[in-house]
This record gives sequence, structure tokens and C-alpha cells, in this order.
Amino acid sequence: MTEDRTVCESFQRAAQLVGKRWMPQVVWVLLDGRRRYSAVRDAIPEISDTLLSERLRELEEAGIVTRSVTPSTPVLIEYGLTERGRDLAVVMDGLSTWAERWAAIGA
Amino acid sequence: MTEDRTVCESFQRAAQLVGKRWMPQVVWVLLDGRRRYSAVRDAIPEISDTLLSERLRELEEAGIVTRSVTPSTPVLIEYGLTERGRDLAVVMDGLSTWAERWAAIGA
Repeated sequence: MTEDRTVCESFQRAAQLVGKRWMPQVVWVLLDGRRRYSAVRDAIPEISDTLLSERLRELEEAGIVTRSVTPSTPVLIEYGLTERGRDLAVVMDGLSTWAERWAAIGA
Repeated sequence: MTEDRTVCESFQRAAQLVGKRWMPQVVWVLLDGRRRYSAVRDAIPEISDTLLSERLRELEEAGIVTRSVTPSTPVLIEYGLTERGRDLAVVMDGLSTWAERWAAIGA
């Protein structure tokens, strides 16, 4: 038997970020590429504008999401993932696979 | 270009469960095997008794955690993962790997 696992500092930080309401959904939606704010919102059932804006800002501060502004008319604002953000694909794909597998089996 | 990804019902449910404060940490700690309540609490920095109890109950209701009672003196109560819960190992290991990789690189 190995030593009991404890939550180390890096896992704690990651879990505090990902383990937050709507975070997995926002990252999931952006994995395909840059999207406008309205496209992100429309892809996530039931999310409110307040919480989506807040989550996008938090993910930007954490270096996971990048906000790009194209000076067209009207101005085009898009959200995308940084390298750090795209690297979460394994986690999100794992969650998706898990969700599908157990949804099929039932509760 | 494929169709834009949206959050399907099964991913939404999984994300609402895992994307909740302390959930990843609780599942992570139980991946090694059954643990007493106090051992789970001690392994997670800063978690409160109120929230840990609430999360364990929610995970039990979701069929991810199982609570076993051994009728010894004193009674031994332990928490462990169900098959469904252990199947989250890929997600948690992915998060752990991601956390370590990017913690090393810095913020």
C-alpha cells in the first residue's frame, strides 16, 4: 500500500478553477476554436449572461482563455483557448466519455 | 469545418456535478480506496466539515460514492468510490497532469 494521496497545491488550484459552476462547459465549447460571446452562450443551456461573463474573465485571468478583438464594423470580439487551455482537452474529453458511458447505463 | 460543438445533456449533467466546489478534490482523494471521513477531510486543504459532508452526500446520491458502515466498536464509517466513481480516474489523472505541467511553467 502506498502513502495515502492528499491534494497537493497544484491540484488544489486546478480543481478550484475547473471545479466551479459552468467552467467545464465554457472550456468544452471553446475546444473547437474561437467563438463569439453569443455563440458560447447559445451553446451552453441555461447559463446566464452574468455568470458567462464572469467565467470568461476568470478564465482569461488564469491564462486559459484569450479574448481577441478585430477592429471591423461592428467590432468582432471572440474568445478562444490559449495553449494552456487547449491542453485541458484530455480532461474534457475524459469527462465527455464518462458522461456518455454512464448516461447510457442510466442512473 | 465540423458543426460547432454544443453542450449536450449528458455533458451538462456531468459538468454540473464535477464542476462544483470541492468535487474534484473529494473524488481525487478517494481514488486510492476507502477512507474515513476524517482522513478525507485531512487530505483536502481548507475544506469545511459542512461542505465536505454535503459533497459526500451529493456524490452518494449521484452513485459515485458509497458509504460503508462496519458494526465495530466504535462503528467504522468509510467512504469509497463506486465503479462509476472509479471510472472518473482518467478525468482526475488528466487534471492532475495538467496541473503539474502548468504549475511548473508558472502562471
